[in-house]
Amino acid sequence: MKNSLILRQTGIDTYREAVMYLRTDSPVCISEGFDAQARVQINYLNKSIIATLNKINSNLLEQGEIGLSEYAWNLLGAKEGDLVTVNHPRPINSMSFVRSKIYGNKLQRFEFKEILDDIVSGRYSDIQITSFLTACSSSKIDFQEIMDLTQEMVLVGEQIKWHSDFVVDKHCVGGLAGNRTTPIVVPIVSEFGLIMPKTSSRAITSPAGTADTMEVFAPVNLTVSQMKKVVEKENGCIVWGGAVSLSPADDILIRVERVLDLDSEGQLVASVLSKKIAAGSSHVLIDIPIGPSAKVRNETTGNLLKLYFEKVGEKLGIKINVYFTDGTQPVGNGIGPALEARDILSVLSLKKDAPLDLRNRSLEIAAKILEFSPKVKKGEGFKIATDILQSGRALKKFESICLAQGGFGKIPHSKFLRPYLAKKEGIISAIDNRHISRLAKLAGAPTMKSAGVDLHILVGAKVEIGTPLFTIHGGSKGELDYALAYLKQRENDFITIKEN
Amino acid sequence: MKNSLILRQTGIDTYREAVMYLRTDSPVCISEGFDAQARVQINYLNKSIIATLNKINSNLLEQGEIGLSEYAWNLLGAKEGDLVTVNHPRPINSMSFVRSKIYGNKLQRFEFKEILDDIVSGRYSDIQITSFLTACSSSKIDFQEIMDLTQEMVLVGEQIKWHSDFVVDKHCVGGLAGNRTTPIVVPIVSEFGLIMPKTSSRAITSPAGTADTMEVFAPVNLTVSQMKKVVEKENGCIVWGGAVSLSPADDILIRVERVLDLDSEGQLVASVLSKKIAAGSSHVLIDIPIGPSAKVRNETTGNLLKLYFEKVGEKLGIKINVYFTDGTQPVGNGIGPALEARDILSVLSLKKDAPLDLRNRSLEIAAKILEFSPKVKKGEGFKIATDILQSGRALKKFESICLAQGGFGKIPHSKFLRPYLAKKEGIISAIDNRHISRLAKLAGAPTMKSAGVDLHILVGAKVEIGTPLFTIHGGSKGELDYALAYLKQRENDFITIKEN
Repeated sequence: MKNSLILRQTGIDTYREAVMYLRTDSPVCISEGFDAQARVQINYLNKSIIATLNKINSNLLEQGEIGLSEYAWNLLGAKEGDLVTVNHPRPINSMSFVRSKIYGNKLQRFEFKEILDDIVSGRYSDIQITSFLTACSSSKIDFQEIMDLTQEMVLVGEQIKWHSDFVVDKHCVGGLAGNRTTPIVVPIVSEFGLIMPKTSSRAITSPAGTADTMEVFAPVNLTVSQMKKVVEKENGCIVWGGAVSLSPADDILIRVERVLDLDSEGQLVASVLSKKIAAGSSHVLIDIPIGPSAKVRNETTGNLLKLYFEKVGEKLGIKINVYFTDGTQPVGNGIGPALEARDILSVLSLKKDAPLDLRNRSLEIAAKILEFSPKVKKGEGFKIATDILQSGRALKKFESICLAQGGFGKIPHSKFLRPYLAKKEGIISAIDNRHISRLAKLAGAPTMKSAGVDLHILVGAKVEIGTPLFTIHGGSKGELDYALAYLKQRENDFITIKEN
Repeated sequence: MKNSLILRQTGIDTYREAVMYLRTDSPVCISEGFDAQARVQINYLNKSIIATLNKINSNLLEQGEIGLSEYAWNLLGAKEGDLVTVNHPRPINSMSFVRSKIYGNKLQRFEFKEILDDIVSGRYSDIQITSFLTACSSSKIDFQEIMDLTQEMVLVGEQIKWHSDFVVDKHCVGGLAGNRTTPIVVPIVSEFGLIMPKTSSRAITSPAGTADTMEVFAPVNLTVSQMKKVVEKENGCIVWGGAVSLSPADDILIRVERVLDLDSEGQLVASVLSKKIAAGSSHVLIDIPIGPSAKVRNETTGNLLKLYFEKVGEKLGIKINVYFTDGTQPVGNGIGPALEARDILSVLSLKKDAPLDLRNRSLEIAAKILEFSPKVKKGEGFKIATDILQSGRALKKFESICLAQGGFGKIPHSKFLRPYLAKKEGIISAIDNRHISRLAKLAGAPTMKSAGVDLHILVGAKVEIGTPLFTIHGGSKGELDYALAYLKQRENDFITIKEN
């Protein structure tokens, strides 16, 4: 067989980039003229993938062998010792659309379709994906393009159908540390009787996404059919959207956005609504926290996002209610998966020291969602939600949902703690979300569940010299040191104390 | 020592991305919380680099070992078995400037400086470099930014000083297949007595750069001191700019531009002028071919580029003369390093079948450069250049330059040829540069020297059914097949024949 090579699993984990390894002196490398970093097509049975070539100048591989990274190995689904062929892939036509976008031209719907098809089938390298994302960021795509991109992101994945046409959902446009209302809202709404199959994301630029936090309690990597079973039984669930692959394009794009610490408006609307439409939602509440250090910094940007969400939603046939909330300071005390999980549990179990801000935000959002229902009059949602929480039915429902998802786990604790104390007395006048989030990420969140920052004060609190302001929870010794180095570097940027 | 690891050379060639390998179960991976694809700082003596982590789930490495890719190995300059430490790198502050640019803000000079410093010291991953390039592409950077970027690109590298203040140079804004005038112009100009230390680039988006073609004749990877010796002896040289590292930032950016098939106006002006200033040039001729399928498609774009070049040049203290040339069809017959080398040699050695278009363009450009000299009156340059060529002194000078650079080599030939014949009779009305270039690249150019496309006809030629229009020269069997597949896919896009 022409160019036939023997497969070897290298055990090299390159995350989500498919990499292949060939000896520099292998006949196939020479005859095909492959360069290091070339994109090469690998064919196995009736399947093919594209991988980036790394050349081997040592005896890691024998002549006639081809090594694959773990990601490429899983994509191909091959077995050790099987035979494959390799060749130059055909040119990626859709890259000319990306270049056109870079030059400021508007993209047509079929162009987005081709780009997304190629991205999902692994034809784009990280460099190409980054270029597409950067070219589509900020104000560089218009309303029509966002709509087209959203629809094509839905079509490139699976779409879930439910037994009812009335399916509610919520989404918070992040940027506010510790704002983890979902695990409180879902049990309230589903206990009331509405269907709320919540798929959440993992963190992009924040120290934890809802899926990261929920995972502290229960498995979130459910398949679509597992998720359906949970919802049939409990009306609601809280699972990771990436695992059910509702928007496979989005899952790939988010990985690069994470490296760049970037998610732009158009991409945000497309990302959120593509997931909601694919999840079969009919009514969606969008929570937009507004504050000087939140993701959305003022009402002007908020209103632009609201307009995009509502217009795109209307065109695509789902009812959107956009709700602005206070984004001036973190919500709850904990920032990071385990610390946020602790706050959630204290609200659900009606503890006296439960963070009141998290409790009230959750009730307000649950209220708005309940009011989507024709059975609930406007203005009555809050009372109904409060009753369900106070009666303990919400906690019970949450436990049932966790068990249905695969178990109700204990919250882990960090062993690497370091409190940060006030250096002068006065009144707390500001807490900078962005810097606190950064600190929690440097401490290891969200990868290390126990890592994060635990805030001990709110804006307006009176402090003395030595009052603990927050405690850093390190995911490891190295990460604690790293966070401390950052803290020392810009000590005055986290919390502002006004002297009396 | 904390986190101390034993170095192993893996022999894995990842091109110009630094990659490091650690066992997934190694204590340092776990204690530092490193993820696959994390950027990790490696410290060796008083040196440190940043590399992308690949985790190893097999026995490629022992506990306590760290593997490096070839590029990382060379960057660090370490020895097998030496000890290194690893840690999280400090946050890259300059990425916030890149994000600001993505959001459409203007960058200040110190921001470009920080970005370029970080890029040159290897702190940026490919994803981050791509994002910077895409955000700065097209009309997204203004005149002041191009000037700032250019100056900082110069300052981040070395600058050459010559024994004279009068140093001429030329640059062609590519996009025209086969337009290889430099190896003819340099011997004419330096034979006349002007100093012309020409540094050329390798191909970015074309089937050959001048350095790729010159390399067919003589070594081009000269160091600065080797280059200086050649110029002291011969007045001129033709070497690869990347090897003398006149603009190390540009060398890194070009690698990503090549993957994206992108080089935008601002980046182009910064790239060219940063190299010319670093090379110590005082007078530079910029050749801009204009044509519907050249890089610059019309005079409007040409004039914009001319304005940028002249204004930035004036501010930075070098005299620029921008010269528009005919870019409606390829120059010479060959496209690809060896085929272009053949055309060059036939002009220099006054062969009867030498391509007249290449000869005339070279003489015109040499004329313009000679006219920079106070000794040459306007309008007399062409006669002087023609005399030097016709007397055989240009050929002799070319041979001397090649020998001074390290040898005068033979031109290689491809073994994988396939002619393409006219399928109808008529007059050639158009030749599409972009598609012909693409075909030459698919055939293996510029990596495979002998690969490319040899054109047999010009626009206006009369052809019969069966007249050979061009011949594809494959760098390998696989590459020939690949080019043929592309040819078949869009057979009507290369050459247009108008029936009589």
